[in-house]
Amino acid sequence: MDSLLEGLRLVDAHCHGVVAGPLTADAFGLLATEASEPAPPGVSHLDGPLGLAIRRWCAPVLDLPAHAPAADYLARRTQLGADAARRLLHAARLAALFVDTGIRAPGDDWLDGDELGAAAGARVAEVVRLEAVAEQVAASGVAAADFAPAFADALAAATRTAVAVKSVLAYRRGFDIDPSRPARQAVTDAAGGWLRRGAPRLTDPVLLRHLLWCGVDTGLPIQLHTGFGDRDLTLPRADPSLMRGWYERVEPSGVPVVLLHCYPYHRQAGWLAQVYPNVYVDVGLTLGHVGAQAGPVLGEFFELAPFTKVLYSSDAYGLPELFLVGAAQFRWALGHLLSTWLAAGAVADADAERLAHAVAADNARHVYRTAIAASAA
Amino acid sequence: MDSLLEGLRLVDAHCHGVVAGPLTADAFGLLATEASEPAPPGVSHLDGPLGLAIRRWCAPVLDLPAHAPAADYLARRTQLGADAARRLLHAARLAALFVDTGIRAPGDDWLDGDELGAAAGARVAEVVRLEAVAEQVAASGVAAADFAPAFADALAAATRTAVAVKSVLAYRRGFDIDPSRPARQAVTDAAGGWLRRGAPRLTDPVLLRHLLWCGVDTGLPIQLHTGFGDRDLTLPRADPSLMRGWYERVEPSGVPVVLLHCYPYHRQAGWLAQVYPNVYVDVGLTLGHVGAQAGPVLGEFFELAPFTKVLYSSDAYGLPELFLVGAAQFRWALGHLLSTWLAAGAVADADAERLAHAVAADNARHVYRTAIAASAA
Amino acid sequence: MDSLLEGLRLVDAHCHGVVAGPLTADAFGLLATEASEPAPPGVSHLDGPLGLAIRRWCAPVLDLPAHAPAADYLARRTQLGADAARRLLHAARLAALFVDTGIRAPGDDWLDGDELGAAAGARVAEVVRLEAVAEQVAASGVAAADFAPAFADALAAATRTAVAVKSVLAYRRGFDIDPSRPARQAVTDAAGGWLRRGAPRLTDPVLLRHLLWCGVDTGLPIQLHTGFGDRDLTLPRADPSLMRGWYERVEPSGVPVVLLHCYPYHRQAGWLAQVYPNVYVDVGLTLGHVGAQAGPVLGEFFELAPFTKVLYSSDAYGLPELFLVGAAQFRWALGHLLSTWLAAGAVADADAERLAHAVAADNARHVYRTAIAASAA
Repeated sequence: MDSLLEGLRLVDAHCHGVVAGPLTADAFGLLATEASEPAPPGVSHLDGPLGLAIRRWCAPVLDLPAHAPAADYLARRTQLGADAARRLLHAARLAALFVDTGIRAPGDDWLDGDELGAAAGARVAEVVRLEAVAEQVAASGVAAADFAPAFADALAAATRTAVAVKSVLAYRRGFDIDPSRPARQAVTDAAGGWLRRGAPRLTDPVLLRHLLWCGVDTGLPIQLHTGFGDRDLTLPRADPSLMRGWYERVEPSGVPVVLLHCYPYHRQAGWLAQVYPNVYVDVGLTLGHVGAQAGPVLGEFFELAPFTKVLYSSDAYGLPELFLVGAAQFRWALGHLLSTWLAAGAVADADAERLAHAVAADNARHVYRTAIAASAA
Repeated sequence: MDSLLEGLRLVDAHCHGVVAGPLTADAFGLLATEASEPAPPGVSHLDGPLGLAIRRWCAPVLDLPAHAPAADYLARRTQLGADAARRLLHAARLAALFVDTGIRAPGDDWLDGDELGAAAGARVAEVVRLEAVAEQVAASGVAAADFAPAFADALAAATRTAVAVKSVLAYRRGFDIDPSRPARQAVTDAAGGWLRRGAPRLTDPVLLRHLLWCGVDTGLPIQLHTGFGDRDLTLPRADPSLMRGWYERVEPSGVPVVLLHCYPYHRQAGWLAQVYPNVYVDVGLTLGHVGAQAGPVLGEFFELAPFTKVLYSSDAYGLPELFLVGAAQFRWALGHLLSTWLAAGAVADADAERLAHAVAADNARHVYRTAIAASAA
Repeated sequence: MDSLLEGLRLVDAHCHGVVAGPLTADAFGLLATEASEPAPPGVSHLDGPLGLAIRRWCAPVLDLPAHAPAADYLARRTQLGADAARRLLHAARLAALFVDTGIRAPGDDWLDGDELGAAAGARVAEVVRLEAVAEQVAASGVAAADFAPAFADALAAATRTAVAVKSVLAYRRGFDIDPSRPARQAVTDAAGGWLRRGAPRLTDPVLLRHLLWCGVDTGLPIQLHTGFGDRDLTLPRADPSLMRGWYERVEPSGVPVVLLHCYPYHRQAGWLAQVYPNVYVDVGLTLGHVGAQAGPVLGEFFELAPFTKVLYSSDAYGLPELFLVGAAQFRWALGHLLSTWLAAGAVADADAERLAHAVAADNARHVYRTAIAASAA
């Protein structure tokens, strides 16, 4: 099982750009946590599950022993320069990566899009963040009555070659909302209020719903942030089971809804994937962050979700390390899980192999309707 | 431990009737999922945890190797005709089964009650679904003022030989309700409104509460659907810890409340079973659906629940396979769990044996106050 | 790893006093559960996860074989008299214990404070329960306008040598509250209402918030009951992620907030500890109560929490056994967890050792700003 997984190229269906150049210890630490402040003196953000996983999987790729001390690792990383990012991305052995281009670290040496793909040796496609497009439209100076058509045009232009759209409603408002499509006049009124306030970070529930439904109109799969993440999030309102009414309303369109991250509501997400034909779950962010616990956590994703409904991503952001950590943790955890099932007689070899291929790349190819040569090592 | 569990006949304290005859692949698949639509082309509802468990445990009983392909399994099943159901039910090795007769697949060759018991070689008793009785009373053409006494009469008649009543409040309304017994006039008013609307599927909160309290009046144990199930369920409102006020009000009556399924709130359910003397937890539906993960999930049921408070059921519905899957998963998971505890020195042999007997049948015998010869192999 | 953990003296950062003398079987059973009524005839509160853990870890300390029957254990305990408590406390191998003095069993032979420390051979410090101080102030006959200054004075006096304050807001109201500091007049008005009603058990949300903020004013770490406990608790309202707005507001003060117990929301708590620099998680109560499942549950605490943010306590109350059970369960579960991680190559030896020292005592020394010689065996 391990050698099968080593040989599979993964589709990383949700990720972000990275800082290409060297980073200070503080900057590196901040990109390896969901916290938003540097660690206090004497403490390191690397002193936790994700930090251990970085030292475990990435140090050998930079010619250091696994678990080399963080200071040695950072020094070696600086010494290698841009080659470090290339080595780490390449070691993830990806067939494709789908990049959410809606956020980036300000003012850094940012590696995104085609350059990221070239460094990884993988095909690249774009994921368009709905709220970012809306904020760009507002910043362009549109009138309230023109907001809806201007947003529709901007979204059409932005998604011309995209594979998915993405919503961060969980951060902006939470999932305890009216799931119906808002009326046109309500959208114009809400846009008026927002624009009059100078169009700050978009949190208006009517507009956020409008964005979601415009996302459905594109016909592309919709990636939904659910569960944990940065601290500006009321966790219980990010439970994806609160969005039931919306999945039902989206169902007739046939548009897939991919629940990203999910933790600690990944069991709820698995149930949703079982009962709603258009709902999928993605292990991204979670498997990296939980470090040595990736095996048990991945097992929980597989408690109710059909095997055709689970997707891989890294949700890597900022650090090239996170592409490799995501991929290595996934291969390790899935290998461990399937070996346990095989040893217990709970699955046959052929089914285990099919499941591995499905989650590593085949399900993504189906959901995102892209022809990626995913299984060639 | 394994041979002990193999030898124990189980009390299956919550189940349903089955389709006796052959089924198409689509019909079989729909009965092996909580989804409500056939799988799209190229996808099978059997391609998930429960499907694997069916192929693992049931294929050998139909003379096929474990994990035989689904198509082979279905062909062999059709070939065997009614004998397939008999073999599968018999292989579950049940002492008794308590059948919720309140739902059935329409227009099929349905095996229920005594025939089900005969096929399983087990004693049968009935569980009466409160909402089904109320809907039958309404369909009989009762006046609003007569609803309450007519329901009381109908429930008394329906429960004459029953071992329990059951509520599906979780589906119809959720647990964030006023837990008190509604006043008589409020019930009559609510019945009036419901009957005037033509008595559709009962979702009125006053009437649902009235049904629950009439359930308490019967003196029989009350089985409560909690946690996951079909898609017409807002999962967070099916968290059994929301019903705390009701358990407290029921407590003086001494009526046992059995929390069915529970997942993913089974840890919450375990706590409730510890702190409320009249609250019990039942692993039904969950252990089958989580497939190869049954061991870790069963372990979580045993984190806070007293050993005298955990009950077995299959919640089998429609497929005779689900009786065997429930029983086999339970024996396998409990055997694994107790072996792990024994190996760690966390439990003594005698305690492990007592726990196995308790959960397999003794607790059910106590809660449902029935004299079943449960431990004879 | 096991011998390392055996050698570490623990800081038990949250516990209570114990009954020093013999106890009836019923009284002993009631102190070994979160239930509030004696078990019915034929049933024992010891017949569950915590009861097994008591018999496993404590019987050998009283010269009985592990898992000796409960009756034998209780007889031997009575025979040994006060020596039983001394043996059990000593066997926990504690460096220090921080005692919440705000509750005690009425009318018993209660061992608290210095005597408890002497019996355990450990340093003792006090944790002051905010609600208990407020209720004492009210009982002293203060006027509404004087309540706030009188409480401030009483808290200052009570905390002169304390290491922490504690809030039981989760029991009294739940976490879905306005997190801001209430205005002075609102406090006086609320105090007036409470005092006029005869100052019953404090549940007024304005006063409870006032107490919390006065806790912050002391500059001491604040221990917050979260998750399961006695039955007078609506569990979903004890989810610590509901208190996000309060952690943010407390953050500028630098005051540490320690989330006690957490289960079944310990994954949520781990996320909070990662994203809020002032939030910590404490495994107390949970590891004892979940018995043989302590390993998997402890693993879940370590999924998102930084290793510098996890703390040990027993939350022992009433039974000296619970000090030993908490400590033994912690050593066993952590040893098992780290051995698994080491065997998988997920952590290096040096990191595992550092993590063990941190959680056993070093983190507590840092959070509670006390100089305890913690690692000497």
